[in-house]
Amino acid sequence: MNTRLLVLDLVGTFVFAISGASAGLRRRLDLFGVLVLSFVAGNFGGITRDLMIGAVPPEAISDWRYVAVSLLAGVATFYFFPVIDRLGSAVLLFDGAGLALFAVSGTQKALAFGLNPIMAALLGMLTGIGGGMVRDVLVAEIPIVLRADLYAIAALAGATVVVIGSLLELPSTASMIVGTALCFGLRVMAIKRGWHLPVARPRT
Amino acid sequence: MNTRLLVLDLVGTFVFAISGASAGLRRRLDLFGVLVLSFVAGNFGGITRDLMIGAVPPEAISDWRYVAVSLLAGVATFYFFPVIDRLGSAVLLFDGAGLALFAVSGTQKALAFGLNPIMAALLGMLTGIGGGMVRDVLVAEIPIVLRADLYAIAALAGATVVVIGSLLELPSTASMIVGTALCFGLRVMAIKRGWHLPVARPRT
Amino acid sequence: MNTRLLVLDLVGTFVFAISGASAGLRRRLDLFGVLVLSFVAGNFGGITRDLMIGAVPPEAISDWRYVAVSLLAGVATFYFFPVIDRLGSAVLLFDGAGLALFAVSGTQKALAFGLNPIMAALLGMLTGIGGGMVRDVLVAEIPIVLRADLYAIAALAGATVVVIGSLLELPSTASMIVGTALCFGLRVMAIKRGWHLPVARPRT
Repeated sequence: MNTRLLVLDLVGTFVFAISGASAGLRRRLDLFGVLVLSFVAGNFGGITRDLMIGAVPPEAISDWRYVAVSLLAGVATFYFFPVIDRLGSAVLLFDGAGLALFAVSGTQKALAFGLNPIMAALLGMLTGIGGGMVRDVLVAEIPIVLRADLYAIAALAGATVVVIGSLLELPSTASMIVGTALCFGLRVMAIKRGWHLPVARPRT
Repeated sequence: MNTRLLVLDLVGTFVFAISGASAGLRRRLDLFGVLVLSFVAGNFGGITRDLMIGAVPPEAISDWRYVAVSLLAGVATFYFFPVIDRLGSAVLLFDGAGLALFAVSGTQKALAFGLNPIMAALLGMLTGIGGGMVRDVLVAEIPIVLRADLYAIAALAGATVVVIGSLLELPSTASMIVGTALCFGLRVMAIKRGWHLPVARPRT
Repeated sequence: MNTRLLVLDLVGTFVFAISGASAGLRRRLDLFGVLVLSFVAGNFGGITRDLMIGAVPPEAISDWRYVAVSLLAGVATFYFFPVIDRLGSAVLLFDGAGLALFAVSGTQKALAFGLNPIMAALLGMLTGIGGGMVRDVLVAEIPIVLRADLYAIAALAGATVVVIGSLLELPSTASMIVGTALCFGLRVMAIKRGWHLPVARPRT
């Protein structure tokens, strides 16, 4: 199981790091600024999760592969930015993929550390949204999680699938795949179709 | 004692979550964005405190009541926002009440974990100002603690009362009530009367 | 060794606190807002480092000297701001000195807690850039680490010197002095000469 979690985490780190690097390039940061933003976006969620469950030092600090993957994503984005930027919503897709992967891996890890099911789902959601949140704060924007259609709720849906799968003792690979697909699917549909939650009416 | 601390913490979470939800609604976030901001504003201070004293997982993650109270505050604010918004300074009052409650409960908890008195008061102050700080950062504003009249110093005054009460071995309920009242009272007077600290003179 | 680390840490805290106070005064915050920003800028990096290596409560919370040094820097800056502000790049120099001191002390402390060399250098870099990052976020700016020439890479260079010195079993005082000088020197040259890393070309 540890190998599966590690792969999920590293892929999530990679795609979030791409979204971080893209945000940095849009703001015309230099190479190292882009790499810092890649690392922070890719690893902030996981570091927060590890601090909260008491797994210190966090894996992103104690395992070199997280840094390597973040830097690789940052350098690749730096040199191929025109390609990525032209895809426009591709950046949103990378962000959505990272959200799904981290929500699921975060939930699974929290369950493995003995948190109760409801809190494990919540911590999974926080793991998913953490990286994008700090990325946006660092470039002085209101985080996408606060603005976007079905963002945190998609993460919560993916996390809930993992928790339910664990309660029913289903094979965890299956529930992790379904959870990731559900979260990513919801987020993609929200982007493509403009699905959204109610907004409070303005004062009249 | 644990029950008293829990009640203080939950009431503080509730009022800070209202202030977070109000900030989100002013920025026209959707329902889930508002709920995320409620949770973060209501629990960031307490989570930071628990991480610093080594109480992992933080109670806001391991005890479902913190989430429930935050969501309740968020949903209530979402539907009754016109009422709350019309009260104007009511939002500042909720923020001030949360500040007082968290400063006091944070100090008390830090003392219970064996921190020395000066550091316990400091940690209590940080617990109080943490939630509002991250709330404002997330909506891309300079935090109120940095701008407002007598904000952090009011939290420090409340925390100091608790510490002095503990040193004199007074009953802790009494010192917690006096500390909360002093912090809240100072903050309210600062708002109503425009009390403030010196500002550096501009260059001439 | 502990005494040397403590001195480095306290001096780093002092100079970062000056940069925090200056940033606050530029935004016309009142005295207490300035002091809060001094404390946060001076101690955020060290607190993050301590949380990540599991040293709780963080020294900035458990040792009163960190608070005292931060407040002293804040008050001094408040009253002598016209002098400091007139020096202009002096603020950048204080920031660069803090960067160098924290990068080196953070690396040394991470090595002492048994992190592997690569991760110790990374954590040292994060310790160095953390304080300035949160200072800028709190006054709603894009952090200098993301914008400035040779900022994070200077911290990484200083941290690397400490790690190499440790691997070669050189006397740690020597490698700490060389590391601090290298980081600070790189940063000063980057400011004076406009050295910088490549920036991605805009789309045409």
